[in-house]
Amino acid sequence: MSGLTEAGCLERRARLWEAIPEDVEWVLIADPRHVQYLANFWVQPLSFSGGERGFLLLERDGRATILADNFAIRSAVHEPFIDREVVEQWYDHTHSVSNRDHALFVALQRVASELQGRNGLVEDEWLPVGAAAVLPHAECGFDRREDETANLGIVLRRLRRQKEPDEIELLKVCMRAGDAGQARLREVLRAGVSEFEIYREVQRAALEAAGRPGLVYGDFRATNGSNHKAGGLPTDYILQDGDLFILDYSVVLDGYRSDFTNTLAVGQPSERLQEMFGYCQAGMAAGEQSLRAGVQCRDVHAAVAGAYPENGKTVNFTHHAGHGIGLAHPEPPILVRESDDVLLAGDVITLEPGAYVEGVGGMRIEHNYLITVDGYERLSNHEISLT
Amino acid sequence: MSGLTEAGCLERRARLWEAIPEDVEWVLIADPRHVQYLANFWVQPLSFSGGERGFLLLERDGRATILADNFAIRSAVHEPFIDREVVEQWYDHTHSVSNRDHALFVALQRVASELQGRNGLVEDEWLPVGAAAVLPHAECGFDRREDETANLGIVLRRLRRQKEPDEIELLKVCMRAGDAGQARLREVLRAGVSEFEIYREVQRAALEAAGRPGLVYGDFRATNGSNHKAGGLPTDYILQDGDLFILDYSVVLDGYRSDFTNTLAVGQPSERLQEMFGYCQAGMAAGEQSLRAGVQCRDVHAAVAGAYPENGKTVNFTHHAGHGIGLAHPEPPILVRESDDVLLAGDVITLEPGAYVEGVGGMRIEHNYLITVDGYERLSNHEISLT
Repeated sequence: MSGLTEAGCLERRARLWEAIPEDVEWVLIADPRHVQYLANFWVQPLSFSGGERGFLLLERDGRATILADNFAIRSAVHEPFIDREVVEQWYDHTHSVSNRDHALFVALQRVASELQGRNGLVEDEWLPVGAAAVLPHAECGFDRREDETANLGIVLRRLRRQKEPDEIELLKVCMRAGDAGQARLREVLRAGVSEFEIYREVQRAALEAAGRPGLVYGDFRATNGSNHKAGGLPTDYILQDGDLFILDYSVVLDGYRSDFTNTLAVGQPSERLQEMFGYCQAGMAAGEQSLRAGVQCRDVHAAVAGAYPENGKTVNFTHHAGHGIGLAHPEPPILVRESDDVLLAGDVITLEPGAYVEGVGGMRIEHNYLITVDGYERLSNHEISLT
Repeated sequence: MSGLTEAGCLERRARLWEAIPEDVEWVLIADPRHVQYLANFWVQPLSFSGGERGFLLLERDGRATILADNFAIRSAVHEPFIDREVVEQWYDHTHSVSNRDHALFVALQRVASELQGRNGLVEDEWLPVGAAAVLPHAECGFDRREDETANLGIVLRRLRRQKEPDEIELLKVCMRAGDAGQARLREVLRAGVSEFEIYREVQRAALEAAGRPGLVYGDFRATNGSNHKAGGLPTDYILQDGDLFILDYSVVLDGYRSDFTNTLAVGQPSERLQEMFGYCQAGMAAGEQSLRAGVQCRDVHAAVAGAYPENGKTVNFTHHAGHGIGLAHPEPPILVRESDDVLLAGDVITLEPGAYVEGVGGMRIEHNYLITVDGYERLSNHEISLT
């Protein structure tokens, strides 16, 4: 089963140690996304442990320790790449259960003495107060938020932009699953079918292509003249001739995700809708031409918007031109009018031009790309067309 | 769309205020399950905000405030039952994104001055260090863990056992969805089908019955003489004549879940398998007879085990006889040999007798029950049979 690799995890840890102050001897990672990023430890959201956590203790000498309760460790999707498990028993099938969160904190307590007298940093966006209480306070970097290199949340979010090869391989599995769901939409779309039926068909096809269970989310909605801005999970609405169906969705495996879109017409689309679709396609083509490392993201947005009449004002192209994806959605770089971001080699991004006209309808198309020094590699391969 | 009700949320808050010390004037709830429990605020896990959080500030005068970023609030499954939203902008489709977690902490900072000089309690299992840093420390009850009535994690876990009517209604929607998936298994089970194909069919049928997207997890595994203890999500294994298929799964809506099981034979089961199935059925019947408020959970376990030859030793009935379900799995009461728990009216529990013999196969059956003063109401309605 595809997942992150040991080489990838070690490379990401090496980059982390380079990015933070030299006097830091240990870091305690608490955001589940970052525990996954650095150690391939992802509690299966489709398990009774969904929503539970492990912490990751990294030391500058290279040692990696996972802290967890006895069932969270067994509910991990993959074997994590670590040197040590510190596991506290939460439930044993013989006694009443203890507080599961406290089991995790007891696991942390068992390593706390090892941290005494050594400078460390904790991830304060996710480390709970109850966990911090068992640590040797004096040495924790709770108060160094003014120094961005000593803020794990900031450092890790920056590192995440440049995807390693194992992350790209995993993203490609998500992409192939996304492609399969888009293909399934073409088979099942017709007047008389509900949005929710389409969701179930797309989900089924996407997971079949993924080869394993995963999360499927996004916009599965019809638009038309009286509802040109629908978004979100499907409703019971029954598609009618003249509607458009926007399938803008993600397949999530081990926290990583695809995110791409097509809009299909139910029946023959009007000339106005075809014209609007042409603007979206022109926007995507213009955006693609601008993609390469070093380009200002506001310039990519300008390129996309510039392909529309009046920069998109006549068709209400008001949202982002695209954004980064990976362990979150959206994540930097953000392709918007006033973006401060610059494209980096290793960014995985979307381009998603849309057009929304009251009384007519709404539509959006989207591909995903890996940014390279010279340009990009397109990662999604679904067909983009209105019919 | 079914969900928790305002009356239910207000009742649960009233019970919370009664359970904690009188001098506490505010509480800050951070465990996403408890924010849902008390305010019907559940960030849709099937959305780009999946895994993100809101905090809930409750005050003794009745006021309820949700703190969140601008997209987490929009990604909630339902309209929360609160008096005030304090929402900080994280992303605006025009500028680069800020740190999403910090947006939440800024929302909290905006109410911190209101808490100054007033006794409060925070949920220290889930409130992050970075959030606690913006609160007026002196008044926070971080250090009162010795007093169980001043430990929100303990108090809330106790309150959760006695389900309110709205919780039971929501659980019943999960149950009906679970029933539909069990029925679908009967239609699709045959030699030549993979575990993963069955998973997709069951998921599709369960969600159709639920009427909306939700999470589906559990054991979707074949057992046989050479693999009598399989559990977990499906694999690519292709079912063969003589296998058993254990479908022990949950449908999760708004955090609440069903959890029930049947085992079906592929082809004609052997006499030995039928005999083992009979023990499971006898165990369930004996367990059911013992269910009522006030009964020791160890006695329910003893009743179930007592229906097997040698208390289950010859068929390796070694796991729990059942457990509570709701916003977690398992949760108290725990029906095990050395349980300290006593059944309460309002508990929702499972009974799940099984039998596992090396060289022969493994099986399990399970129903879900609401415990009442006189006995129980069975909540699951799937057919339990081996063929």
